[in-house]
Parts: sequence; C-alpha cells; structure tokens
Amino acid sequence: MNLWFTELEFSYKNVGLTLKIKKQLHHEETPYQVLDIFETFHYGKMMTLDGIIQLTELDEFFYHEMISHVPLFMHPNPQSVLIIGGGDGGTAREVLKHNCVQQVDMIEIDEQVIAISKRFFWKISEAFNDDRLKVQVADGIKYAAECSEKKYDVIIIDSSDPVGPAVGLFTSDFYGNCYRILKEQGVVIAQAGTFWYQPDEARDVRSKLKEIFDYADLYWSITPTYPAGQMTYAFGCKGINPYEFDKMRIQDKTIKMKYYNPDIHMAAFALPTYMLYENDKA
Amino acid sequence: MNLWFTELEFSYKNVGLTLKIKKQLHHEETPYQVLDIFETFHYGKMMTLDGIIQLTELDEFFYHEMISHVPLFMHPNPQSVLIIGGGDGGTAREVLKHNCVQQVDMIEIDEQVIAISKRFFWKISEAFNDDRLKVQVADGIKYAAECSEKKYDVIIIDSSDPVGPAVGLFTSDFYGNCYRILKEQGVVIAQAGTFWYQPDEARDVRSKLKEIFDYADLYWSITPTYPAGQMTYAFGCKGINPYEFDKMRIQDKTIKMKYYNPDIHMAAFALPTYMLYENDKA
Repeated sequence: MNLWFTELEFSYKNVGLTLKIKKQLHHEETPYQVLDIFETFHYGKMMTLDGIIQLTELDEFFYHEMISHVPLFMHPNPQSVLIIGGGDGGTAREVLKHNCVQQVDMIEIDEQVIAISKRFFWKISEAFNDDRLKVQVADGIKYAAECSEKKYDVIIIDSSDPVGPAVGLFTSDFYGNCYRILKEQGVVIAQAGTFWYQPDEARDVRSKLKEIFDYADLYWSITPTYPAGQMTYAFGCKGINPYEFDKMRIQDKTIKMKYYNPDIHMAAFALPTYMLYENDKA
Repeated sequence: MNLWFTELEFSYKNVGLTLKIKKQLHHEETPYQVLDIFETFHYGKMMTLDGIIQLTELDEFFYHEMISHVPLFMHPNPQSVLIIGGGDGGTAREVLKHNCVQQVDMIEIDEQVIAISKRFFWKISEAFNDDRLKVQVADGIKYAAECSEKKYDVIIIDSSDPVGPAVGLFTSDFYGNCYRILKEQGVVIAQAGTFWYQPDEARDVRSKLKEIFDYADLYWSITPTYPAGQMTYAFGCKGINPYEFDKMRIQDKTIKMKYYNPDIHMAAFALPTYMLYENDKA
C-alpha cells in the first residue's frame, strides 16, 4: 500500500507537507471538527483536526516544550496555570514538570480530543493522571468571560488555527478577559501560526496583545511537521518584564527537555528581520 | 493543469515537501547532475539538482544570508573569500555586500549551474557582474589540495548534499586543506544538512572540523523549502574565538538583509537540546 497524507498550507493551498501512512487508526466527526489518527512511517502516530496536523509522537515536543516552558520560566513563581485548548495533554504534561505549579485548569471544548488522546497517545496524555490537573469540557472563550473568582499566573492558549472553533480565541475581547483573570504578575501565551505563511495572523495577535498588556511580542521555534517547519508564539506580560527572568531557575536540570534549554529560551526572542515589529510600520 | 513537485527527505523517503508547479522551465543532464528549473505557484522559480531543491526565489535569502553573514561577521576583517560550489551566485551576492571584501574566488564544478542561474535567476546571480568575483569552473576538492600561494580569510562550502559530486567535500582531507589555505585568522563554514533528519551528517562534519580547528561547532537557521524547514551549518575557526566578534561591525545598517540581524547572529548558535554536542557522547 502506498498511502500518503498531505497537508496543504491553508492560506495558499499550493505548498504542503506529505507523509507516508501505515494505516488510518481512527476517524470521527465530533460536534466541533473532524478528528483523524494516522500511523505514519516516520513520525509515529499523528492527530489531525480538519485535516491539519496537530501533533505527531516524534516531534510534538518542539511545540509543547516551547509553548509551556518559555512562559513558565518568564514568570518568577508560576503556581496556577490555565490552559485553553490543549486537549491532547502535551502542554499540560510540560507545565506539570514544574514543581512550583500547584494547579492547572484545562478548558477544552472538544471532549473527543481528550478521549482520543488518552486512547492513542498515552505518553502525551500522561498529564491526565496528575492530580494537579483539573479538566473542564467547556468553551474557553465563555470560561474566560465568566471567570470571576480564580486568578492565574500563566494562561496558555493552546488552540488550533483561527478557523473553526478557535476563531473567538483570537479576539481582543478574549485577550482582555485573559488580562483580567491573571494575577498582578502574569503571562499569557498564544500559538500564533506560522509567521512565514500567515504574517497577518501573528501581527494581529501581537497588536491586540500590545494594546492590553504591559509587554507583548513574538517568539518562535522549529516544529518539523508544522507549515514551513516553524511556529510563532505571541505573549503578553502583566507586571512582568519578560526579558528579566530568573537565570538561576531557568538552569533547573531536573526538568528533562529535548528542545528547550536556557540558550534556546533567549534565542527564541531573536526575530528574523522580516518578523520585526518595525517592518509592520513600513 | 495540476502539476506537483515532491521532494522526499532523502534518508527515509517517507516524508516530503510538495509544491504546486506552473510549468517546468528547463531540464538537462549536466556531466555532474540532473538540473531542473520549475516555476512554482508560491515560491517563484525554483532550481533542483538530482531532484533536491537548491533554491527558490522567495526563500533563498534564509540560506544565503546565514551561510555568508555569520562567518563574515565572525571574522574581524574579511578581505579574501573562497566559495566552494555556490554556482547559483546567491552566496557570492551576500558576501559581496561587505565592503571590506576585496576578492571572492568561486570554485564551481558544474558550469551549467552558473549558466542556468544567469539565465533564470538574474536577481540571485547579480554577483557575477561584480569585478571582485573570480569564477573558476573546477573541482573544489582538487583546488583546495593544490592551492599553494593564495590564502583566504573565509572559506564557504556552499555544496549540495553528500551524495553525488559533493561527497569529497565532507572529508577530513578536504577540511585539512581548508585549514592550510586559511590565513592566521580564518573561518570555514559548511552546509551540514538538516540535523533533524540527518543528525549523523552534521555530527560528522562537526567532529571532523573539531579535530582540525581551534573552535568548531554548529549553528542553524530556518529555511522553509529545505527538509523540516531548517538548515544546519558547521563552522571551524583558526585563531579566532567565534563568540568574540566585533559587536560594532555587526550593527552595520548599510547591508540590507531579510533574515540576518545581530540578534539572529547570536541566536543561531543556541542549539536545541537534541543537537547539543554532549548528546553525542550519551
């Protein structure tokens, strides 16, 4: 059998990543999206939502480490973390590697993402066995709007792209609610697409965060199975200077990581010239 | 017409990049390799050698800037530069942006690469109009072995992958000759594949350079149309500490670049944990 899965970059549809497939393990239409699991030759098992690669066993660590450890090490002492989305559990797994973290709330809209991750990705979904993680199947936008008592140190927006159920996660209203439910010192982080193919998406998230937060900008990492092999992350800081993090804490050798390290932390903020904010004003 | 070009990653052949093609502009078998030019929808014109993407108009700047400006800014005052390969002219174009550079020798084995680049990629091949550039159609391995009078400040090994005509460019003998024909202070740089897919290639180049040079290591950059969207570069320094470069010179605003900038220069040396040298000893 010669079966290939091809994901075309979604803005242009004329460039894509193609992967040879051993077999399709699962297919379903959830109330929110089409969820598929494939066994690939190179990348192990892979989850796609609406035909877009969300994670593979081999390279999920790039994204999950970089969306988690950068904000958690930016913050001086993160104890309470909110994850919007992230139903596969990979981000929670990384967050829970920090011993200072006492509670993680995950608000995932699609319970099938959680169920299927537990079934097929036991290494990725191991976070669900940690008592510090509380999962709610709910709309993250509504949760942030209605949350009145709890406050968080770090909010991680681990969403799919701004098509389908995730559109409302890319609005100023939602970011304003994130600001409100952060403590005096807090960090919000959002996946912001691939700057190379979707510069407007990343710029838009950065601009909206800049209007609300004391500091906001982008950082980036390699991610082999995402478009162009890269991912852009947007962050907003409340009462924190993102570049003055604790250089001792970041050296913590007890947390095992495959991509992230202190040098990578600093380097992630170095933006290629075409990504610099000044270029938006040209 | 629905025509697609697909490059499968060459070690595994089960993951690849696919690009929609407007038309094929050229095809020939040179004495060394199969050379094709395509007009793509997204990336403009594209050159492939033996089916491997060498450059596209849209994203060639990532690779050409990073293989050129990093070593040229590592060196305190690069005046004479040797380029092995690089027949498309992109690396020479970047090197010649440095006013301190007085002479560039390019040793390209396949004169058809030069001829075809001049015909199809006039923006990339503009370097060939610069009087400082001297082109020899010759074998770079033989040139380095026989070169006895000239010495260089910087040697850039802008080769194709270590299959076909470029195999001999990945040997200790060749690197030894590079060391010999560098001045007292000199830098050699080599494209070393994609660490993610070919870790052994990058490690091998690094190890060989470490045995010969005072300092040797890797750096990396994004490159959307190369495998996994990344490229690894190996460098060796003779009489130079690569991390003590001139921070004034690197701020030179007269050189226009789309990827490279001082922050990116530093960040390029920050290796993901899986690429660190220590991991080779595990």
